[in-house]
Amino acid sequence: MNRPLSQRIQRIGNAGAFGVWEKAMALEAKGKKIIHLEIGEPDFDTPAHIIETAHQSMRNGRTHYGSPYGDMTLRETVADYVKKTRNTAVSPQNIVITPGVKGAIVMSLLTLVEHGDNVLVPAPYYPPYAEIIRYAGGNIIECPLTAADGFQINKSLLESYITKKTRVILINSPCNPTGVILNEASLTAVAELALEHDLWVISDEIYYQLNFTSSPPPSIFSNPALLDRTILLDGFSKPYAMTGWRLGFGVFPERVTKAIADLIVNYNSCVPLFIQDAGVAALTGPQQPAKVMLETYRKRRDAAIEIIDQIPNVSYAFPNGAFYIYLDISKTGRNAETFAYDCLEAGVALLPQGPNHIRVAFTQSESAIREGLSKMQQVLKTKIV
Amino acid sequence: MNRPLSQRIQRIGNAGAFGVWEKAMALEAKGKKIIHLEIGEPDFDTPAHIIETAHQSMRNGRTHYGSPYGDMTLRETVADYVKKTRNTAVSPQNIVITPGVKGAIVMSLLTLVEHGDNVLVPAPYYPPYAEIIRYAGGNIIECPLTAADGFQINKSLLESYITKKTRVILINSPCNPTGVILNEASLTAVAELALEHDLWVISDEIYYQLNFTSSPPPSIFSNPALLDRTILLDGFSKPYAMTGWRLGFGVFPERVTKAIADLIVNYNSCVPLFIQDAGVAALTGPQQPAKVMLETYRKRRDAAIEIIDQIPNVSYAFPNGAFYIYLDISKTGRNAETFAYDCLEAGVALLPQGPNHIRVAFTQSESAIREGLSKMQQVLKTKIV
Repeated sequence: MNRPLSQRIQRIGNAGAFGVWEKAMALEAKGKKIIHLEIGEPDFDTPAHIIETAHQSMRNGRTHYGSPYGDMTLRETVADYVKKTRNTAVSPQNIVITPGVKGAIVMSLLTLVEHGDNVLVPAPYYPPYAEIIRYAGGNIIECPLTAADGFQINKSLLESYITKKTRVILINSPCNPTGVILNEASLTAVAELALEHDLWVISDEIYYQLNFTSSPPPSIFSNPALLDRTILLDGFSKPYAMTGWRLGFGVFPERVTKAIADLIVNYNSCVPLFIQDAGVAALTGPQQPAKVMLETYRKRRDAAIEIIDQIPNVSYAFPNGAFYIYLDISKTGRNAETFAYDCLEAGVALLPQGPNHIRVAFTQSESAIREGLSKMQQVLKTKIV
Repeated sequence: MNRPLSQRIQRIGNAGAFGVWEKAMALEAKGKKIIHLEIGEPDFDTPAHIIETAHQSMRNGRTHYGSPYGDMTLRETVADYVKKTRNTAVSPQNIVITPGVKGAIVMSLLTLVEHGDNVLVPAPYYPPYAEIIRYAGGNIIECPLTAADGFQINKSLLESYITKKTRVILINSPCNPTGVILNEASLTAVAELALEHDLWVISDEIYYQLNFTSSPPPSIFSNPALLDRTILLDGFSKPYAMTGWRLGFGVFPERVTKAIADLIVNYNSCVPLFIQDAGVAALTGPQQPAKVMLETYRKRRDAAIEIIDQIPNVSYAFPNGAFYIYLDISKTGRNAETFAYDCLEAGVALLPQGPNHIRVAFTQSESAIREGLSKMQQVLKTKIV
């Protein structure tokens, strides 16, 4: 059989997410010790009360099909959480439980984007966005943000990328890979442009709870004027160390809600009910484990920053959220990908992004971070071949 | 926001799967007792050893991201299962673990079908096939099978539906809704046509283990000449009462494997590892619970058939697999949908399929089946309004 696969499949890839990781695995298989600072995943296991809830739920027979919209108890719990955190009342009817936030993003874009539409994304951004937008038949239009501006959004710059083909603005705050939280001015710029140009807004807030400041991150979902055109996405992976559970949610305008559920019916049918029950436990149970993890990330960030500040020619915007530091290495004269592979040989895995940046994830122990970054520092001291 | 949603979304629906079910729920909410013979889902809970394996796995920290291809232990276990059941050696590299078989079907079609391609499906078929094919931009071409032929495939009839636009033949054996197992002659017809016309074959064998005959169901995946053009799909939902776990698998030709994994990376990232570990327990643990369920379904089928055989003007092809009886009610002068709603008022939920057929699922207790079918019989004795 030599027939070509479909064009849509030829548009999708894995965003190179596994390049460094696979090489690291290969080195580890040969016995080399690698410190993993490339993976955007909590090193913590899921808190025990969440696991025990899932187990009890399985034993209670919650092993059958559920609604494609999600279980009503979790949808009501999520509605409370959204009200409490974004100060916006939403009906559980507008909430759909998804297999992670990534699933919610791809389904949202498949629902909103017509072939040839533009999706405007402030850059840098989470690389799979590009894959998903292309897969949905759209064009990704990058609006470059700068470290000098603290990676905040400038309205006139963002507007300069809007054309008649623009359909969606996709934002992510706290941001992967910069760790930056968009401020009120940035969100106002997005809101005004969405209204002026009749655009959808997708707000990926999966890192919402990973916030190191003393006030909640501003959310565009708190703006009532935007509600009929905004999709809020959040989930359980990062705050509750539940990455492997594949549990997220979206809050959607009404007619989008049905489209998302129709996609779920035909793709994964539903998220397992016992996993949804675990989500209820995560949001309504003790928050102490999540607080301990957050405090640990903060200490790790501070430790990482302390080392990085001693490294010449490397700069970053201070990360107030998520668990990443986005290093600009352009002044070192290195190419990010080559540098990442050199670091890997030295025993530390880091994620190259574009030619000039390295993402450091502080999702390992403080000592591993210290050791990994000092390995990186050693590589920077070597001559460029 | 009044902008239209994407065209692809306008092509998808929920195949009317929830019409009768939602009406039944509404009646139950009013206090009416309904016997559910419309749902294609085991009434059994998942066997305890599978649940306990998932729990132990969660406690062992299997709550992190896994490979989009699936965990190697489960892929190896599935390879053994395929070798044992289909008599075909496959590499774990060709296996991808999916969120249920439905997910595997939609991803397979998205990978193989170009906009405007035809997908040939023997009818009657599982209604979501039509939604999924349309969603993937294809046209569903139905080749009608008849109860008189035992719903087996006739090569020249099937061939008469093949054109230059045909890309895939999608078969399902044991079949939902007929319960029929395709015989060797049917599979040979499909195989010859696939080779002669250079077509892909997707074989949905989710009911493979629900087989009431003394020999294993023939599988097109046992034909070595077809391996580079055949996708075998099977899963855990039906044989192990794991519908709500969303766990299935596909065996794919090599270049398709990567495409499926790329779709998973960008949609659900992976199937939860603790669910995959439960899948290993299902396939390698004690098979007694599955055998007991199978024997129970057989008894229920026999009880249902005994009653149906006493009802005038209703016919069926004898179901040797799955858990459905596909009733032809055309000689009763009733319209299937109207009849289903009349039955619902009488206290039994049944699934209408097309104007002339009713699908009875024997997924409830024998006494519920007897009571439900006698209610159906009563409705048939009333005058047509």
